[in-house]
Amino acid sequence: MSDERFGVHVDVRVRFAETDAQGVVYHANFLVYCEVARTEYFRALYGELTADERRHGRDYDTTIVHAACDYRAPARFDDSLRIWCRVAELGRSSLTFAYRVARITDEQLICEARTVQVAISRATRKSTPLPSEFVSRVRAFEDSLSAGSRSA
Amino acid sequence: MSDERFGVHVDVRVRFAETDAQGVVYHANFLVYCEVARTEYFRALYGELTADERRHGRDYDTTIVHAACDYRAPARFDDSLRIWCRVAELGRSSLTFAYRVARITDEQLICEARTVQVAISRATRKSTPLPSEFVSRVRAFEDSLSAGSRSA
Amino acid sequence: MSDERFGVHVDVRVRFAETDAQGVVYHANFLVYCEVARTEYFRALYGELTADERRHGRDYDTTIVHAACDYRAPARFDDSLRIWCRVAELGRSSLTFAYRVARITDEQLICEARTVQVAISRATRKSTPLPSEFVSRVRAFEDSLSAGSRSA
Amino acid sequence: MSDERFGVHVDVRVRFAETDAQGVVYHANFLVYCEVARTEYFRALYGELTADERRHGRDYDTTIVHAACDYRAPARFDDSLRIWCRVAELGRSSLTFAYRVARITDEQLICEARTVQVAISRATRKSTPLPSEFVSRVRAFEDSLSAGSRSA
Repeated sequence: MSDERFGVHVDVRVRFAETDAQGVVYHANFLVYCEVARTEYFRALYGELTADERRHGRDYDTTIVHAACDYRAPARFDDSLRIWCRVAELGRSSLTFAYRVARITDEQLICEARTVQVAISRATRKSTPLPSEFVSRVRAFEDSLSAGSRSA
Repeated sequence: MSDERFGVHVDVRVRFAETDAQGVVYHANFLVYCEVARTEYFRALYGELTADERRHGRDYDTTIVHAACDYRAPARFDDSLRIWCRVAELGRSSLTFAYRVARITDEQLICEARTVQVAISRATRKSTPLPSEFVSRVRAFEDSLSAGSRSA
Repeated sequence: MSDERFGVHVDVRVRFAETDAQGVVYHANFLVYCEVARTEYFRALYGELTADERRHGRDYDTTIVHAACDYRAPARFDDSLRIWCRVAELGRSSLTFAYRVARITDEQLICEARTVQVAISRATRKSTPLPSEFVSRVRAFEDSLSAGSRSA
Repeated sequence: MSDERFGVHVDVRVRFAETDAQGVVYHANFLVYCEVARTEYFRALYGELTADERRHGRDYDTTIVHAACDYRAPARFDDSLRIWCRVAELGRSSLTFAYRVARITDEQLICEARTVQVAISRATRKSTPLPSEFVSRVRAFEDSLSAGSRSA
């Protein structure tokens, strides 16, 4: 179930609120699980800083421009799911995350997903390049994870 | 199913997303339906103004301090529900709404609810009196609704 | 804002519950709007029957295997949105819907989306061909819509 | 922040999906947090059994008939919240849970809540007494927690 390309993961328990009348997790909720993993990715990337501190002094926001999910198997109430997350692509102003959601008990793959975010200038509301500090940090982080995986 | 004390209503269709693995509307979602009705109440109260315009120039926000639901019967996917809404109490800085949710087809009462909101000064973040213009407007509106009901 | 290829639409008002701390509709909620449009599509397709009646006697369920959204512009609280919906592809056991979400007031395109559903046998839980009655009905419905659009 | 009467707790991080355009957790979501705590309560009560196993062989479901929240302070994106949970009342067929939600970092009380569930016979869909095995188990569990708290 681990995947050496995916350096960050977070575990969630399926909430009853997240199920639907088919008895499974409602499909849109996997995008919420991806958001939970993305938040943990940024926490891992910026260790010491809170979400507020990371945003402080930034002159851009990010906005999601694309999201896609491939549903492989249903998940049910109280399932323990592991969401793996990595940066799959870094563009001039865009950031693509890839995700894998699997059930922990039987390693069943549940969902694969992808989101694309774009940096938007707070002043102009137009897309703006990702800061080079951020790009270097992500590259170094992803490299360290690959190295870690290789050596593990 | 109509209730003369309830002057405003809005209809919703139960979305699949709102159901849970028991096959019924997840209980927390009735607070969302109440919010939909409350929004229509303010639209009826302020006819011509958009939500943005109503907020413009105001020096206070409102925040919900209490919410309670009594669930009378389950609602299911694709049910047409009518949510009735009225101001039940006006305090110095607080505003209490009462709600009734019923299924349209069989007039089955589904849920009764109540929310209490408090006006909070944007400057101090402390509770602040509701503007007298607002209070008069609500009183006149509720009176006109009662009168309308009586004459109907 | 109308699109002759899209025969069915439904309007929604953005609920406060659907917004997030960026002040816009949370991205996962567009999949819920798509579900609302899909439900209306089936209502239009099967006019006289309720969701329960449509399911009655069927020996298959459908499950969503893919969903993708392209976000074009943000939507905000109380925006009136129109969701257009059509069947874009009919496979042996799969059904692809395409969606366009636009704001009614300024015709701003907000989101384009696509979902793929697969028919699953209730007995075997494996994919099963869509019934020919269903396929013919969808084809006739889509044709009538195109004809209607052409003549309009 | 601990409260000796509350024997079970669970921690959640506020998801971006759970915030609203006021920048805080949307009020209805606290009922979801309560559900998460209630689920952990049953896990603690029935240690070894999964949710499915706990339900297996039971001839009743439970349904929520009342829920109420008092909101004390706002919670924000990425806040770590602790939800405390206990059985506050055991009726013939009803089960009342009390909850306290507090932010972990500053021990700020965020929300107090209460839900009432009723046991419903699967055969008749009418309320049915809680099984005496269940009642004894809850009483013993709550007693052990109080004892634990006293001795801690």
